[in-house]
Amino acid sequence: MKTNHCKIVDCTVRDGGLVNNWDFSVEFVQDLYASLNAAGVDYMEIGYKNSPKLMKGSEAAGPWRFLNEDFLNKVIPNKGDTKLSALVDIGRVDENDILPRSESLLDLIRVACYIKDVDKGLDLVQKFHDLGYETTINIMALSNVMDNDLVEAFQMIKESPVDVVYIVDSYGSLDHNDFKFLVEKFQEHLPNKRLGVHTHNNMQLAFSNTLVAAELGVELLDASVYGMGRGAGNCPTELLLTHLKNTKYHLRPSLGFIQKHMITMREKWEWGYLIPYLVTGTLDEHPRSAMSLLASPDRDKYEEFYDRMMTPEGSF
Amino acid sequence: MKTNHCKIVDCTVRDGGLVNNWDFSVEFVQDLYASLNAAGVDYMEIGYKNSPKLMKGSEAAGPWRFLNEDFLNKVIPNKGDTKLSALVDIGRVDENDILPRSESLLDLIRVACYIKDVDKGLDLVQKFHDLGYETTINIMALSNVMDNDLVEAFQMIKESPVDVVYIVDSYGSLDHNDFKFLVEKFQEHLPNKRLGVHTHNNMQLAFSNTLVAAELGVELLDASVYGMGRGAGNCPTELLLTHLKNTKYHLRPSLGFIQKHMITMREKWEWGYLIPYLVTGTLDEHPRSAMSLLASPDRDKYEEFYDRMMTPEGSF
Repeated sequence: MKTNHCKIVDCTVRDGGLVNNWDFSVEFVQDLYASLNAAGVDYMEIGYKNSPKLMKGSEAAGPWRFLNEDFLNKVIPNKGDTKLSALVDIGRVDENDILPRSESLLDLIRVACYIKDVDKGLDLVQKFHDLGYETTINIMALSNVMDNDLVEAFQMIKESPVDVVYIVDSYGSLDHNDFKFLVEKFQEHLPNKRLGVHTHNNMQLAFSNTLVAAELGVELLDASVYGMGRGAGNCPTELLLTHLKNTKYHLRPSLGFIQKHMITMREKWEWGYLIPYLVTGTLDEHPRSAMSLLASPDRDKYEEFYDRMMTPEGSF
Repeated sequence: MKTNHCKIVDCTVRDGGLVNNWDFSVEFVQDLYASLNAAGVDYMEIGYKNSPKLMKGSEAAGPWRFLNEDFLNKVIPNKGDTKLSALVDIGRVDENDILPRSESLLDLIRVACYIKDVDKGLDLVQKFHDLGYETTINIMALSNVMDNDLVEAFQMIKESPVDVVYIVDSYGSLDHNDFKFLVEKFQEHLPNKRLGVHTHNNMQLAFSNTLVAAELGVELLDASVYGMGRGAGNCPTELLLTHLKNTKYHLRPSLGFIQKHMITMREKWEWGYLIPYLVTGTLDEHPRSAMSLLASPDRDKYEEFYDRMMTPEGSF
């Protein structure tokens, strides 16, 4: 299957920061950039471009949560072919913080939002687009969206300047049939837009769902090295590097990075296929209850957790 | 997608024994049987039925490698709906050790062989079939088999009494397109046989490949609890239990078993997605070199390992 239209967006720092509260050293991020650049990865998402003044408790997080341009220039003094990306959340970004692209190291700004905020997301997209950036809109929690809301969102998106529209499996609950359904639906309703996918590994399907989407024509593929990301983590970058056909990617640089940084990182912080994440994934729920269980002394009481999650009280 | 024709064959003890040299307590195996029976799993493969006199160094292994009927009767005094299976290898089984099915707790005997030994495998199948057992033939390392050899094997298999023919991804190197190709090929050449699949998780594709095969009509699905199996391990039983559609399976009993036994098991023994297994998987090689690396002080030197595996000397 040809997948040479694909571009990899490595989200290790941005989504992995949700695991370790952005506690990445400058050396880690510099080594990551060098390895991704050597591997031929197209984009590295180096963090969030949210504003600390719009978020509580932001003092404790590392600089990758609130990127600023001076700091970025120190971290990446010699930019290679790998472009840089940042994510913003609706209501957490101060648009006045964003320089024109010509004065920034960033190439791509991605806007994450729930379906009800697509209008607000597209307002931001318009501003970043006018500043010269490539843009994406990433609609989260698609598995919980009703069709009428989605069709309404498509109408707005179609008329916006956004470059790429993302299908996001926030809860890691979707399989290859679901992805085929969604990709074909997005293609039908948004014939003028390129597509992207962001997967989670609750059911060990992140990589295979990404492959299926790639083969259906999706262009931007989110991934993170060793799968590091919130909860069960993401599609592993190294698997895409080695397995995508007809591409320019190299596996080897990612192996060097993993052996230097990711083994100790995984010993210190936890992500990946753990049973509580399987439970929230199969139930199509946000992983927050699983994360809370895993941080408690009852972390291995899977049966009790399952029973609690299955209790229908209050759901009717 | 309907998958209600499927049957799960849990291989935790048999394939997991390749990880811990069959060091399973009787309590572990009894609890596993009870949980699988409660979950509605169709078969439990409780070990190998090879003969110790035909194998060197066999003293050190637990009893699950050389099942005998008296022992089995003690372990499973009250058999439920879950049938019992054992695997044999060509040249390692003494046929005289096998009782008629009417005197045995076993229901299914599976014969594993490489393509060159399919004739010998089918000789064994004939004997076990005549003794009253259900039978399968499991052709290993299919990704390394040339088409002319496969077509010759199909001819012999078609005329044999074997009930189920397995597609085995020994090296964990195949993706969904490969499985689709193989399943359709087997269906075309063996219209009178039921099919089975056995997957490995080197590329995090074991579960998704199993799902794809199930949707194409494959009946017997091998899996193991928490994925425990040689190298990168297998398709996790718990994922099939929760995700197969239109089936009678229950997830909950497997969660209880995992919390009681598998977390400590995984702390003591290692299997699953580890970078050396990704390397042998993507190179379509037996995992033995990865297992050997992981048992050495150089276990995390992935780049060196990759370079060594990529060296073409001696391959031409």
